[in-house]
Amino acid sequence: MTRLTIALDAMGGDNAPDIVLKGAQIARQRNKDVHFLFFGPENILKPKLSSMKKLSQFSTIHHTESVITNDMRPAAALRNGRDSSMRLAINAVHSGQAHGIVSAGNTGALMAMSKFVLGTLPGIHRPAITSFVPTERGESVMMDLGANIECTAENLVQFAIMGEVFARHVFGWVEPTIGLLNVGTEDMKGHDEIKGAAAILRRMSEEDADHQINFKGFIEGNDICAGAVDVVVTDGFTGNVALKAMEGVARFYGIALKHFLQSSFLAKIGYLIGRHAFNSMRVRLDPRRYNGAVFLGLNGNVVKSHGGTDAMGFATAIGVAIDMANHGFLDHAREEIARLGPLISSPVNEA
Amino acid sequence: MTRLTIALDAMGGDNAPDIVLKGAQIARQRNKDVHFLFFGPENILKPKLSSMKKLSQFSTIHHTESVITNDMRPAAALRNGRDSSMRLAINAVHSGQAHGIVSAGNTGALMAMSKFVLGTLPGIHRPAITSFVPTERGESVMMDLGANIECTAENLVQFAIMGEVFARHVFGWVEPTIGLLNVGTEDMKGHDEIKGAAAILRRMSEEDADHQINFKGFIEGNDICAGAVDVVVTDGFTGNVALKAMEGVARFYGIALKHFLQSSFLAKIGYLIGRHAFNSMRVRLDPRRYNGAVFLGLNGNVVKSHGGTDAMGFATAIGVAIDMANHGFLDHAREEIARLGPLISSPVNEA
Repeated sequence: MTRLTIALDAMGGDNAPDIVLKGAQIARQRNKDVHFLFFGPENILKPKLSSMKKLSQFSTIHHTESVITNDMRPAAALRNGRDSSMRLAINAVHSGQAHGIVSAGNTGALMAMSKFVLGTLPGIHRPAITSFVPTERGESVMMDLGANIECTAENLVQFAIMGEVFARHVFGWVEPTIGLLNVGTEDMKGHDEIKGAAAILRRMSEEDADHQINFKGFIEGNDICAGAVDVVVTDGFTGNVALKAMEGVARFYGIALKHFLQSSFLAKIGYLIGRHAFNSMRVRLDPRRYNGAVFLGLNGNVVKSHGGTDAMGFATAIGVAIDMANHGFLDHAREEIARLGPLISSPVNEA
Repeated sequence: MTRLTIALDAMGGDNAPDIVLKGAQIARQRNKDVHFLFFGPENILKPKLSSMKKLSQFSTIHHTESVITNDMRPAAALRNGRDSSMRLAINAVHSGQAHGIVSAGNTGALMAMSKFVLGTLPGIHRPAITSFVPTERGESVMMDLGANIECTAENLVQFAIMGEVFARHVFGWVEPTIGLLNVGTEDMKGHDEIKGAAAILRRMSEEDADHQINFKGFIEGNDICAGAVDVVVTDGFTGNVALKAMEGVARFYGIALKHFLQSSFLAKIGYLIGRHAFNSMRVRLDPRRYNGAVFLGLNGNVVKSHGGTDAMGFATAIGVAIDMANHGFLDHAREEIARLGPLISSPVNEA
């Protein structure tokens, strides 16, 4: 594997394969060194790709017939999806043909198959779905967003380490801070798992000679959007509900704004005059800029694009996979887990 | 107790006692039959109240010296706060002097003292903090928002019944719908407690001859703001984090909007012309319209105002307590729990 290669599930997502191909084209314009492996039916992909001259020079099609549908349960996908575009794209990462895989398909199936094929990194028990949220200060990383409904203190600490490495090495953030999502900031708040995780992370912050772990303690729901920390750690139930609740409010504001701007003639004129400022805001909050949920903790780079995204959003997700490969995320993660692992497993008196 | 009387903790909240007095004045203008019992230091309250002629005719001051501070732990408040304004205001509900109590003070202390003094309704094991959220369709009721970090299936079902009675009888909503917050809408999603609660509520929907319970199944985070159901039920950890996360996004949008409107001369002019529409939106989303978290499940009407609210917001919270008393919430809740109780405790095979 001499050049950077990304495997793409060409059949995943609401508008596949078009957004996958167009997304790859955009990603290729941004990253001149990348090669793509498209997994999907050759008779569909070949004519489309041959009309995209530039892209086709750097692309290979791996013919696959079967597709993982959105309503397929993870167990069924594992059992019956061995020849699917998604599964074969994951296999390409395992075999070393690709440095990462991007799919806009069934999230549960992608997680189950990725875990089965790639396994987790040494010292990591469960992978976490990780994504980006826009904040008042820029953006933050948030995890787990639904892979693990119930989490132990150790799971949460492992998520925090993965998230820290991701923020530091892939995003290049300097000394990223970590916060545990809770119902208050006082030590006594929350359930046993979160108190246990806080105790371990607090000790890591103190005992780590390299001071890589910068734990800020508990944060509350409103601190996410305020940008209080760079890495927001929580269990998959809370994270999934909170992120979707936040998306719901964003949608609500968009609708309310539109409605009231259209409610009177003066408001319309106001909008027309001020639309430049509005559009800047829209760009800033554009969900496509934040597309690409990363499965952190796997022994391979796996990125899940939103199923309903467009080519621009899919290109963003590909960009995340490229950045993870280019910045050696997996090597950094392995090193950090090896270094900090002993501090996770030793007994914690405070918890 | 011949006339409607509300006990007010005059010393709770960031701007007490002024917002409490002014809030009562506004609430009195809206509800001509209400009488207030103010709990706080007479030397502070008396001069202020005597300058509010109208209000003072319908008010009584109960002199109290001690105050529950915001940093006091619930256990300490229980132990040492027996003479506090908050505690004596709760006592007034227990003794029958008042039909409800409103405080903008320490939430944990208010819950602990209310549980201790008033107890829960027969058949209800835990009270739930309940509030209102603006939605695309109007507003919804959401619970628990932090009283119970971990909840059993039975707790969640009891919350749902309380929320349903509140929505139906206090708000007057017709056949309010109930949803359980989860990470997906399929039956297999979520942890055991939520699956168990869904099984009980599903059976109640089917077996209840009066068809009072209208359970819509699982909803996801984004369904809250979409207004998918009238009563959103979840455990106190998830509910607290989700609601605060939503408030964070609302704040973020407010800031982003303001920033971009001020970013250029044209945007400013656009704002000036369209400000009427903007202000309508602001009124619609004004958090003061949604002030007043209700502790449902207690043997008494207890309303918690946001600590940082102003007089207008405090008046809204008083209005909630008045509505609960006027619409006989407690009687309806007792009836409904007596009627549906047997369906909660009988074994559920599906769970």
